Amino acid sequence: MSLLVVGTVAFDAIETPFGKTDKILGGAATYISLAASYFTKNINLVSVVGGDFPAEHIEMLKKHHVNTDGLQILKDQKTFFWAGKYHNDMNSRDTITTELNVLESFNPVVPDAYQDCEFLMLGNLVPKVQQQVILQLKKRPKLIVLDTMNFWMDIAMPDLLENIAMVDVLTINDGEARQLSGEYSLVKAAQKILAMGPKYLIIKKGEHGALLFDKTQVFFAPALPLEDVFDPTGAGDSFAGGFIGYLAETKDISFENMKRAIIFGSATASFCVEKFGTENLVGLTAEQVDSRFQQFIDLVQFDIALA
Amino acid sequence: MSLLVVGTVAFDAIETPFGKTDKILGGAATYISLAASYFTKNINLVSVVGGDFPAEHIEMLKKHHVNTDGLQILKDQKTFFWAGKYHNDMNSRDTITTELNVLESFNPVVPDAYQDCEFLMLGNLVPKVQQQVILQLKKRPKLIVLDTMNFWMDIAMPDLLENIAMVDVLTINDGEARQLSGEYSLVKAAQKILAMGPKYLIIKKGEHGALLFDKTQVFFAPALPLEDVFDPTGAGDSFAGGFIGYLAETKDISFENMKRAIIFGSATASFCVEKFGTENLVGLTAEQVDSRFQQFIDLVQFDIALA
Repeated sequence: MSLLVVGTVAFDAIETPFGKTDKILGGAATYISLAASYFTKNINLVSVVGGDFPAEHIEMLKKHHVNTDGLQILKDQKTFFWAGKYHNDMNSRDTITTELNVLESFNPVVPDAYQDCEFLMLGNLVPKVQQQVILQLKKRPKLIVLDTMNFWMDIAMPDLLENIAMVDVLTINDGEARQLSGEYSLVKAAQKILAMGPKYLIIKKGEHGALLFDKTQVFFAPALPLEDVFDPTGAGDSFAGGFIGYLAETKDISFENMKRAIIFGSATASFCVEKFGTENLVGLTAEQVDSRFQQFIDLVQFDIALA
Repeated sequence: MSLLVVGTVAFDAIETPFGKTDKILGGAATYISLAASYFTKNINLVSVVGGDFPAEHIEMLKKHHVNTDGLQILKDQKTFFWAGKYHNDMNSRDTITTELNVLESFNPVVPDAYQDCEFLMLGNLVPKVQQQVILQLKKRPKLIVLDTMNFWMDIAMPDLLENIAMVDVLTINDGEARQLSGEYSLVKAAQKILAMGPKYLIIKKGEHGALLFDKTQVFFAPALPLEDVFDPTGAGDSFAGGFIGYLAETKDISFENMKRAIIFGSATASFCVEKFGTENLVGLTAEQVDSRFQQFIDLVQFDIALA
């Protein structure tokens, strides 16, 4: 049973109130894969980079149980590059530069060896490219999770709506849920979005946690209160990676197990934001991970017996 | 074992994107007492109103187990009046009118029959008046909870700091925690504030839930996601009322029991915001209350066994 991760592998240059970086490793599929690697050991990556992408990054991914046979390397082109600057509250950011490079003509190819995938995580990417991957799979995965963003709602809504109707879980943030549904109340927004096709909706609220909805139930998990948040880049992707990594490993897609997956996803995202880029998601020890999970559980667990 | 509630009893005129009210019953002590009444039946009120305050409101409070012997009625004066208008996001508001009236010269008197109080809830009020109540009690209560707001930090910080050093639990919102501590990170803010004296700090984040800190532990409870929030007025007071009402009834002030109290406080606040003013806190049935508590527990409870 394996996990297929599709999304960008990129260079990011990030500025926050706490500092700035040169071009460092980034990309939705990178964060998702690294986060998932703390839960499951069978991760298959479909993405694209240029000839400028260092072999050491690929080696690092392999050490985190990521099969990179589906990572296309276009030697004469350059890797996708994004530069952004966060505002003082860390909740909003400006894009400084977007160089699509290899993404402009990305034609994803799912290797034969990936066809057994039971869990598919579609990281934020052009909706048409996400859909190409779904259509290449001969057998529908047990669970498809789709992440996207407001940018695609603005310029490719018809394609995005097709994707939303094809997947099991949609993950978006609160602003995007409002944009997609036209409803301010997240409870009303969730019901409208679930009517578009997915069985589950996850609304990410950044430092304010995440909500999981199906048609009749709702579950909430907070973000871990941290002393310092250095860089929110990749937090949503790390959340998604922990979420689907846990599901892929436990092979249980019930609402009850999705609650646990959200708790583990939130705990994993808490590592991500403590340092710049992927730095804090590389090479975590089992002790660090277990201790953080316990901390997270202590944060939210209580014992009530109603009369 | 009784609960003593101190704070304003007032008239409010409220405008939200969903409508507006004439002068309706409001005031921190009103919301606190009503919310607490769903947990404990021995509530003593210290406050002040004018001759314009309708007897029916006092009768309503009595029906909710509130002893009003400590409610001064100044026949020749008018009740405190506040008018405010909420912005579209419901998270911020403008004060349109504040008429202090009876509050200008409020001299709280704790009746002898209230001296046995074991739980004291100091609702938002002039810090000097809050302190007068503490000083009138011959025996220190088992637990003193202090609520306040940024207004008093701006104009009466020395008095407020004295109070903070005298109480067990301080409840403020996230902006106020940052103002009081000078720290943006709520984790750092909490440790600085706990160093000012209180054993516990509750940081209220409105629709984003509430955090409970002591020097070594942190607990989080969300707000219930609601289809519609009509009027946030009194939400923080209802939260505080449910919190202390539950503690007063269970007589257990351990961190574990405070977690439960926060869950019950949050659930009680969720009723408050669904209608204007105190309307939805009056005469709730046991069935309504139990069903909401169960809904709240379902929202946050999960079952994880770590290896």
